[in-house]
Amino acid sequence: MTRPITFLSDYGLTDEFVGVVHAVIARIAPDARVIDLSHGIGRQDVLGGALILARALPYAPAGVHLAVVDPEVGARRRAVALRTAAEDRLLVGPDNGLLIPAAERFGGVLEAVEISASSWRLEPVSATFHGRDLFAPVAARLAAGSELAEAGTPLEPDELVRIELPSAAIEPGALEALVTGTDSFGNVILGAVADDLAAADLRLGQPIAVRVGARRVPGVVARTFVDVADRGLLVYEDAGGSVAVAVNGGDAAGLLGVRPGATLRLETP
Amino acid sequence: MTRPITFLSDYGLTDEFVGVVHAVIARIAPDARVIDLSHGIGRQDVLGGALILARALPYAPAGVHLAVVDPEVGARRRAVALRTAAEDRLLVGPDNGLLIPAAERFGGVLEAVEISASSWRLEPVSATFHGRDLFAPVAARLAAGSELAEAGTPLEPDELVRIELPSAAIEPGALEALVTGTDSFGNVILGAVADDLAAADLRLGQPIAVRVGARRVPGVVARTFVDVADRGLLVYEDAGGSVAVAVNGGDAAGLLGVRPGATLRLETP
Amino acid sequence: MTRPITFLSDYGLTDEFVGVVHAVIARIAPDARVIDLSHGIGRQDVLGGALILARALPYAPAGVHLAVVDPEVGARRRAVALRTAAEDRLLVGPDNGLLIPAAERFGGVLEAVEISASSWRLEPVSATFHGRDLFAPVAARLAAGSELAEAGTPLEPDELVRIELPSAAIEPGALEALVTGTDSFGNVILGAVADDLAAADLRLGQPIAVRVGARRVPGVVARTFVDVADRGLLVYEDAGGSVAVAVNGGDAAGLLGVRPGATLRLETP
Repeated sequence: MTRPITFLSDYGLTDEFVGVVHAVIARIAPDARVIDLSHGIGRQDVLGGALILARALPYAPAGVHLAVVDPEVGARRRAVALRTAAEDRLLVGPDNGLLIPAAERFGGVLEAVEISASSWRLEPVSATFHGRDLFAPVAARLAAGSELAEAGTPLEPDELVRIELPSAAIEPGALEALVTGTDSFGNVILGAVADDLAAADLRLGQPIAVRVGARRVPGVVARTFVDVADRGLLVYEDAGGSVAVAVNGGDAAGLLGVRPGATLRLETP
Repeated sequence: MTRPITFLSDYGLTDEFVGVVHAVIARIAPDARVIDLSHGIGRQDVLGGALILARALPYAPAGVHLAVVDPEVGARRRAVALRTAAEDRLLVGPDNGLLIPAAERFGGVLEAVEISASSWRLEPVSATFHGRDLFAPVAARLAAGSELAEAGTPLEPDELVRIELPSAAIEPGALEALVTGTDSFGNVILGAVADDLAAADLRLGQPIAVRVGARRVPGVVARTFVDVADRGLLVYEDAGGSVAVAVNGGDAAGLLGVRPGATLRLETP
Repeated sequence: MTRPITFLSDYGLTDEFVGVVHAVIARIAPDARVIDLSHGIGRQDVLGGALILARALPYAPAGVHLAVVDPEVGARRRAVALRTAAEDRLLVGPDNGLLIPAAERFGGVLEAVEISASSWRLEPVSATFHGRDLFAPVAARLAAGSELAEAGTPLEPDELVRIELPSAAIEPGALEALVTGTDSFGNVILGAVADDLAAADLRLGQPIAVRVGARRVPGVVARTFVDVADRGLLVYEDAGGSVAVAVNGGDAAGLLGVRPGATLRLETP
């Protein structure tokens, strides 16, 4: 039985890159359903892609999970296919940490295969489009039922490249965290979870101040947008379980002047 | 037999929202075909989304029609699933009027169900992403063959929230109408239909003036772009049956300086 | 057996045009897999669309290949469906040259049908949206197994409109070529192939200068991005087999100030 494939990348939708990956998959696994999770990951933002993949996959059916955010394409970075300990999910992509946080949602990596020289590649392999020539054919073959071990050569899971996930710095009445993403509404996603708010004693319904550099913007800890006034700033647990900052009917990232990589401090006013 | 699902929203394609909704559907209804009608509806533009849904659905196979433009997510607005009188179509979305013009293309609403507390929801339901936690699972279950009545609790169709559709003001030799949308070519869509042009005695092939505020731009009533000179302005019946204003090879919305919500007056020069 | 359909256009993804074409196909050929190759072709850029279609189709399964970049919609241009000599591929679109370079990848056009008055059209046919009313139903019927000859009236393949493909001007130590496209990374694609570089004696690993107007930017002929320094300019064979210019980690189109239609000269420094 053909397994579904999810696909996430930083290719964007302006060019034909995503379409060509779909085309390659359709040749090899004509019955595989392909679910585009997102192609709007920030260019070469491996951490951002890793976090979104980890947030999204628990909602997707178990299958083959193709992800390509690959600043080192054409260099010596490995390409890998992984099996998770739980749910028998297969992840395919570059060995730069992109796949690891998602794998950890499913018990971690049980089995890893280095696929750079996979016999399933499309030849000649281009120097710049491994999504088409390497990752898509491996994902499609796995979806069509081929064995993971046949995709390449075995690799010890603990040799996989990992990325450091941001964690919040917590003190009584304050929390400092990295901006890990902004969405197209201008909502600011932080490298912190709801428990971190509680640990810092920042409670639902209480006023809060958001500090960025020398600025200090007042707001409130709320459940959702409609709980604050129009144009009011709120700190809330977003739908992915992260702490986020938003402006009701507005653009928090613009107001605060922050982008991924910035640091925000939330504190009692 | 699994029914097809159409999906329209204001989520955009930059983030993973659309992809996660697809993922949820694929878990519940792995065989359902999902057709993305548009995710480029203006943010929280319920009227614009309603008009585009009503224009698009007659071209789609009868099935489950998921639509999410939901400014009041997390507030007390109802969530609903509806059955149309004709063609047995099922519409799923917020109870803010978004679904009604489309339902009226199919004989109106025959049966309505309030689904906010549906047993099919994904728990815990987030405060901000009902597309994922509520609407997608309901749409997928219906597509997979579950009964509408099981989706929630019955609701009288005449209790549904409606939106006022714009209508044109007609006098001899003139027509005044709301701008209901602009497309990415810069074409301006009006809340008026071809019959309104005839009622105002504005005839194909005749010169016309488009007034916006104090400005007056000359043009012609034409069948299509190639009927006017390059950069010429035309008033025409668009492919959805609405009166529209365009500039051949140009950007009418930019030229006229209008956005949805503005009013245009078409008159004999 | 239903054949897969690929779909390429300049419709963009903001409006509902692409979604409505999918909807029409789903009504007629509910089992057809539809692969979106790209909808980001430059508005009315027939040459750009033709080149991308020709690059992408060899990666797609043989089937029905729908392409719509159609500046003359509503005018007298023909609409056509074509069968290729090799692989029995069927191409559907306007007769403006868009389909020809792709057809030539598969041995050229074996059989052509004029479909403007096809009995498969959706009536009434709009003046502006032939993608919905003409091309989609023809593509869907062909995918579902109808005969090409039934799509319309026979046409001699040598009556088809052709477009002139750009070719590079080569001299010892220099190559001059048209910019045929830029991608969303800012990479600049030229109307030249790797053999042209060799013919001009511009060799891998050697320094090179890119001239545009009076400016001269130094770079290197390289295999891929990681072979040059950060922010370094490289000339390389891209994944589609074209000569391209890029800046590692940067935006070559912006740096050089070029857009499709410009001319670049590559020369030994």
